[in-house]
Amino acid sequence: MIDLRSDTLTRPTEEMRAAMARAEVGDDVYGEDPTVARLEERVAELFGHEAAMFTPTGSMANVLAVRSLVAPGQEVLCEASAHIARAELGAHAAYSGITMRTWIHPRGQVDLPTIRSMFAPEMGMYFVRTTAIAVENTHNFAGGAVLPIEDLRDLREYATGVGVGVHMDGARIWNAHVATGTPLVEYGAVADVMAVCLSKGLGAPVGSLMVGSADAIAEGRVWRKRMGGGMRQVGILAAAGLHALDHHVERLADDHAHARLIAEACGVDPASVDTNIVVVPRTDASEFVAAAREGGVAVSLVGPTAVRLVTHLDVTRGDAEKAAAVLGAL
Amino acid sequence: MIDLRSDTLTRPTEEMRAAMARAEVGDDVYGEDPTVARLEERVAELFGHEAAMFTPTGSMANVLAVRSLVAPGQEVLCEASAHIARAELGAHAAYSGITMRTWIHPRGQVDLPTIRSMFAPEMGMYFVRTTAIAVENTHNFAGGAVLPIEDLRDLREYATGVGVGVHMDGARIWNAHVATGTPLVEYGAVADVMAVCLSKGLGAPVGSLMVGSADAIAEGRVWRKRMGGGMRQVGILAAAGLHALDHHVERLADDHAHARLIAEACGVDPASVDTNIVVVPRTDASEFVAAAREGGVAVSLVGPTAVRLVTHLDVTRGDAEKAAAVLGAL
Amino acid sequence: MIDLRSDTLTRPTEEMRAAMARAEVGDDVYGEDPTVARLEERVAELFGHEAAMFTPTGSMANVLAVRSLVAPGQEVLCEASAHIARAELGAHAAYSGITMRTWIHPRGQVDLPTIRSMFAPEMGMYFVRTTAIAVENTHNFAGGAVLPIEDLRDLREYATGVGVGVHMDGARIWNAHVATGTPLVEYGAVADVMAVCLSKGLGAPVGSLMVGSADAIAEGRVWRKRMGGGMRQVGILAAAGLHALDHHVERLADDHAHARLIAEACGVDPASVDTNIVVVPRTDASEFVAAAREGGVAVSLVGPTAVRLVTHLDVTRGDAEKAAAVLGAL
Amino acid sequence: MIDLRSDTLTRPTEEMRAAMARAEVGDDVYGEDPTVARLEERVAELFGHEAAMFTPTGSMANVLAVRSLVAPGQEVLCEASAHIARAELGAHAAYSGITMRTWIHPRGQVDLPTIRSMFAPEMGMYFVRTTAIAVENTHNFAGGAVLPIEDLRDLREYATGVGVGVHMDGARIWNAHVATGTPLVEYGAVADVMAVCLSKGLGAPVGSLMVGSADAIAEGRVWRKRMGGGMRQVGILAAAGLHALDHHVERLADDHAHARLIAEACGVDPASVDTNIVVVPRTDASEFVAAAREGGVAVSLVGPTAVRLVTHLDVTRGDAEKAAAVLGAL
Repeated sequence: MIDLRSDTLTRPTEEMRAAMARAEVGDDVYGEDPTVARLEERVAELFGHEAAMFTPTGSMANVLAVRSLVAPGQEVLCEASAHIARAELGAHAAYSGITMRTWIHPRGQVDLPTIRSMFAPEMGMYFVRTTAIAVENTHNFAGGAVLPIEDLRDLREYATGVGVGVHMDGARIWNAHVATGTPLVEYGAVADVMAVCLSKGLGAPVGSLMVGSADAIAEGRVWRKRMGGGMRQVGILAAAGLHALDHHVERLADDHAHARLIAEACGVDPASVDTNIVVVPRTDASEFVAAAREGGVAVSLVGPTAVRLVTHLDVTRGDAEKAAAVLGAL
Repeated sequence: MIDLRSDTLTRPTEEMRAAMARAEVGDDVYGEDPTVARLEERVAELFGHEAAMFTPTGSMANVLAVRSLVAPGQEVLCEASAHIARAELGAHAAYSGITMRTWIHPRGQVDLPTIRSMFAPEMGMYFVRTTAIAVENTHNFAGGAVLPIEDLRDLREYATGVGVGVHMDGARIWNAHVATGTPLVEYGAVADVMAVCLSKGLGAPVGSLMVGSADAIAEGRVWRKRMGGGMRQVGILAAAGLHALDHHVERLADDHAHARLIAEACGVDPASVDTNIVVVPRTDASEFVAAAREGGVAVSLVGPTAVRLVTHLDVTRGDAEKAAAVLGAL
Repeated sequence: MIDLRSDTLTRPTEEMRAAMARAEVGDDVYGEDPTVARLEERVAELFGHEAAMFTPTGSMANVLAVRSLVAPGQEVLCEASAHIARAELGAHAAYSGITMRTWIHPRGQVDLPTIRSMFAPEMGMYFVRTTAIAVENTHNFAGGAVLPIEDLRDLREYATGVGVGVHMDGARIWNAHVATGTPLVEYGAVADVMAVCLSKGLGAPVGSLMVGSADAIAEGRVWRKRMGGGMRQVGILAAAGLHALDHHVERLADDHAHARLIAEACGVDPASVDTNIVVVPRTDASEFVAAAREGGVAVSLVGPTAVRLVTHLDVTRGDAEKAAAVLGAL
Repeated sequence: MIDLRSDTLTRPTEEMRAAMARAEVGDDVYGEDPTVARLEERVAELFGHEAAMFTPTGSMANVLAVRSLVAPGQEVLCEASAHIARAELGAHAAYSGITMRTWIHPRGQVDLPTIRSMFAPEMGMYFVRTTAIAVENTHNFAGGAVLPIEDLRDLREYATGVGVGVHMDGARIWNAHVATGTPLVEYGAVADVMAVCLSKGLGAPVGSLMVGSADAIAEGRVWRKRMGGGMRQVGILAAAGLHALDHHVERLADDHAHARLIAEACGVDPASVDTNIVVVPRTDASEFVAAAREGGVAVSLVGPTAVRLVTHLDVTRGDAEKAAAVLGAL
């Protein structure tokens, strides 16, 4: 089975397993795991932020990052198909008491005029208050679309002007970086706080990081503990992340090429495929998923009329060609 | 001062005060207030629902109604400037753990194609689940716009088909009823649960009701108690509501005429004024509010570039003419 | 039926109804109701605090008061049968995210040695942090027991020393005041924040107040709005409260005498009846409640083996004597 | 440094690292990690329950387990120094809306008469409802005290009779099992749901499991995802757990012997040391901790006048003897 359901499916390579096996560890709840500390420092530096914190999942990193900007009863604005809105089971409301309003963009992009019209400043006790705007880069459900750095800079400037924070869900920021050549530090510069993931394109088995100011991270550690995310000798997992940063970033270009190849076979304009995700609109989405599976290709249903394919570390050029042939025939 | 800031500002009339003073009362937490019971039965019947429940505010009625349809971690879809999204301080998230996604319509209308595209069915453990769609009729921040009954019927049919509930924030449903002639029971027929208000156009000092099935109301009573809304000899207030239903519904037509008169003076097309609210777009919104106050007319700022005027029971024809003159000169 | 189920059952007197009927009102959400303002100022002054805020219920006043001291994920310590622990349906956890630990005292008293042993200071990210201690005076489920002012002063001193706040649920503080002669302002001096009720012994139909610092009350107004407790022309109800403060405080001594009279008939030591509540331990509690009702006396079941009787404004000397006769015979 | 601060500090052995390095893995969010599945089945079977679920921490396992029994606004009863009450930062309230009342026992034991007196059945809308009772075995802050199986059986019988659930925080249930010889399956039989931990005495780097019925676990998987605990190729960690179950259970007897040895040196009656934890009451607790560290022994402050020492996998007989000598001299 060629598995294109998600880039979360990657299995650790032999080299990564070896790195994990020899990791130096300590109790990270006590702040004593040197490998975790090394990973956190390195990731913070990559994005030009003061600090970072390892979390068991990207969802937890997003929840902790957003709550560092938004208090209970306040709101975050985001695009309607953002991961934080659609794929985290309402955790921001259920666990942080945060409400959302959404703008809608088919490519998940920043729509500054609409954001301006939605923004609710502090207006006494009658109105909800907007305290953050969240973006996702690349945008998963918009087919791995990249958010141009120029748009993010405009958003940053607007947000600073009206006194609200910016959160970037950078689960796949590595893909945006490789696809555009924009340095990671430039993405870091347009957000107050970020979530970045090790277990998608980078191929680590488990783990994400919240990235932000030293204060936000210090407070985040307390909330991570409260949320049940304070793990112990987790340097085992951090070692995989360090290995991935050394070896699995630049190769994302291959995933992007594979995605375009498959997109073309599915009748999707490859120019619309920015990175490693292809969303195929199909009125027969359920049937398409079933037929692909028959042909040895696993893909995901992400809506009543939408199928998603994702290339990743475990999909070779040959796999991509075979998947293109199978899916092209449907 | 002619006070057009809100129709919540109405003061009880002498007749209403007399009705309150002679109200028969009991402890409503024990279900023993006969006046409350009478009001609840009457309102339920007006909308063709099984039951209703008195609440101290419309916000609490909305919170309790929405939570009867949506569990923590699930979502409600609504228009982005709905009262539940903008003007309840995030209570649905903060108190019920409910997340929202929003569509945007300048007139607050049902946009069924967009709703269809946003709807998230039960899709395993990965996606948030949409369990309700909320509409507001009339729509406060869209300038008291009426939602046509045909659109509401289409929404009802769609929602039933996909298995989700419909909540109607009918704080000003009385205005929609008077403006269109659509019977209240027909509005009731398109919603699983409603919130209706006595203290806006109807002129009662305090109170709203949640309307719904007997089960939803029975469960709602427990949640109302938990929320601190279980009041005692509240028949005093219910008596005002009963009086308002007898005497203050049909006269809303006057408020609507007054609103159109003022709208025209402000350069707003009166054909766009469905009921008793006028939203005046002004880039100098803050200054406009201040200047109006100088001229003896109080109006509200509802956004950086939007001013809201509301006619109501305490605004006579003469007041409306005077306000039109003052505001027209700005 | 002589109704001893609760002092919440009192109905407004004719004089109180008249006071309500002529109350000057405004929209209290806009801070414009002069009668509410008058009541809030008066109550704040009675307790020597800076400010007070009207709420629809005592439960809401408690929830808002406690949350002014305790953040989500922090804890309040209280006695195990306190109203906030037993009779508010978990609202402090469900709505404020506040956790509790409890000490147990059969008379609901302050147990300082136990409180000391339970107190959890800020100890890094591992332990919950105690940020408030709550007391209830008089203590409802301990049979209206008074908390001696000396004990409250000791608690105040301890709490100040360890940097935590004190909340007093003073739903029946008026009874404590009348029973002991301790001035209200002395009770106010031992708490950072209080909830006091108008609709129990004082006989108003609806309403409580949160009492505290100007800052706590200002923030409380936002949270009251979020909770759905921001009512409009609520001076109607505040007028009843002002009337009750003028006319119904000193007469609580009658209720206390009636309670002792009934207690004696039920075999409860009248010396143990501090105020207007009698808890009768009965292994046949359910049957006792039913038999009393047969005899024309309504009483409450408050636990598997506990019956509660409460005297109040609507129970005359004659009623008390009759109830004593009926219950004494069971 | 001989590190007695906690048994969470253990580092994986070489054999355990090798087991992790060769673990077969898949994406556990998709339910496709065979090593996780193997661990979950094995642990469920050990306790005689239908199912189990891996979680990143014991705190998350406790939160998910308790919420399977207790809805928002309901209560769980537990001992006042239980881990769920003291050391999870109020997560049960903050994230699940669950309130607590506590009984107090110096040895963390089940106190059935007190529990009976606290229990609040469904009594209409006035009272909080008790839906679970939680016990901790062994009890961390009571010095690793074992809860006798007879007491747990009595509790089970009582709870079943009144229709409430029983949660067992079995973070150190392995220690109870080894200390008493009571089979794990007998502990499983007295609880509806459990949390058990791999990263304390068992020596795995990360991970706990929630144990319960198939339904509770199925629903728990959704809530785990919402909480940010749905990890990917987490078989890496599960492999450590399987290794620990094979090799690190019986050896806990050594930890217990070491603890008694150190207790005796500290003037604590070794007969009071049931397992691997010693709580030393010291009025000079802070100074004691500092002095021990000077002497090369790290211990924890767990209250203003309490020091905790914990033996574990990384503490040899020689270490224990040396620690006894150092601490005995203080």
